[in-house]
Amino acid sequence: MPQGKPGRVPEDGLTTRQRRNRPLVLVHTGTGKGKSTAAFGLALRAWNQGWPIGVFQFVKSAKWKVGEENALRVLGASGEGGTVDWHKMGEGWSWIQRPAAAGEPDNESRAREGWEQVKRDLAAETYKLYVLDEFAYPLHWGWIDVAEVVSVLRERPGTQHVVITGRNAPAELREFADLVTDMTKVRHPMDAGQKGQRGIEW
Amino acid sequence: MPQGKPGRVPEDGLTTRQRRNRPLVLVHTGTGKGKSTAAFGLALRAWNQGWPIGVFQFVKSAKWKVGEENALRVLGASGEGGTVDWHKMGEGWSWIQRPAAAGEPDNESRAREGWEQVKRDLAAETYKLYVLDEFAYPLHWGWIDVAEVVSVLRERPGTQHVVITGRNAPAELREFADLVTDMTKVRHPMDAGQKGQRGIEW
Repeated sequence: MPQGKPGRVPEDGLTTRQRRNRPLVLVHTGTGKGKSTAAFGLALRAWNQGWPIGVFQFVKSAKWKVGEENALRVLGASGEGGTVDWHKMGEGWSWIQRPAAAGEPDNESRAREGWEQVKRDLAAETYKLYVLDEFAYPLHWGWIDVAEVVSVLRERPGTQHVVITGRNAPAELREFADLVTDMTKVRHPMDAGQKGQRGIEW
Repeated sequence: MPQGKPGRVPEDGLTTRQRRNRPLVLVHTGTGKGKSTAAFGLALRAWNQGWPIGVFQFVKSAKWKVGEENALRVLGASGEGGTVDWHKMGEGWSWIQRPAAAGEPDNESRAREGWEQVKRDLAAETYKLYVLDEFAYPLHWGWIDVAEVVSVLRERPGTQHVVITGRNAPAELREFADLVTDMTKVRHPMDAGQKGQRGIEW
């Protein structure tokens, strides 16, 4: 989208400046590669603008995406751009002080805890960019109510951009989002027996 | 692709370790957002592995992707991961010492100069990851011969991964690539008159 020319001028009563600062909800879905990598690529732009960034990883294992995590942590600590908070469900979420003796909650409960924190941060306008990585899964599985998510996103205050990744993003979310990209797999090396590779897959 | 399970075990005589280190050519094409952002997201993984990274931007204007560029420059200079060289066609390529009095070459010549340098770097194994950003365009326009590119990529020595982005990636390149992802536009805010936004589009 190098030119950045809108297809038409909308009759929404907004100035160009207002339209340039409209908070967006972006969805990266589909079966192809690049959903999360594009979201983290977007985080580089947000970082360069000096924005506070919150990453919430809704995945069980913290093994993957360690490259992006390390890179964004180094950037966030560099003092040259925005800040980066990285929250991982797979490690029980950073803000939860869980008693050591307590049993581990199941993934559904953990995913809900994550969403509750996102809601609190949106209300407090903690970040300017939220990367809700793999958040489409708990929505697809019915762990978190899509209607509630859309309602919370619709009512969020200020200028907070939200990127949601994951296969099978529910129709209600896709309808609501400002931008939806479907990463379509044309060919993937794993189809031909290629193993996941360091530096490429994580 | 969190599990990293291949669909089948190939009869290529390679060990798992060899298959884990096979040099890949990846193509991000299609009309949707995320082609370049996913390529730069991939560069974060490469950086985290300590790989030398070469970015070649085959675009006229250096205005866009400044966020990714600044972020990768900071990462490359951090001393914590790999190095990053960032070459821009829009600024006449960094390696060319052009006489100040000379006329500026046209974009076709510049694109060819860029490809000639990529060839030299591939032969010298300068990088472990090459991001050939928007390289699909000069191929699509016939400025650079696709058959030659495929031949050079096929014969490249060592373990050098190459990511090529841009709409309209030629069929011959798509056929050759190990991974092809088509970023499909489902909905884009510019369709509704949304202006390009700082931190989102660049």
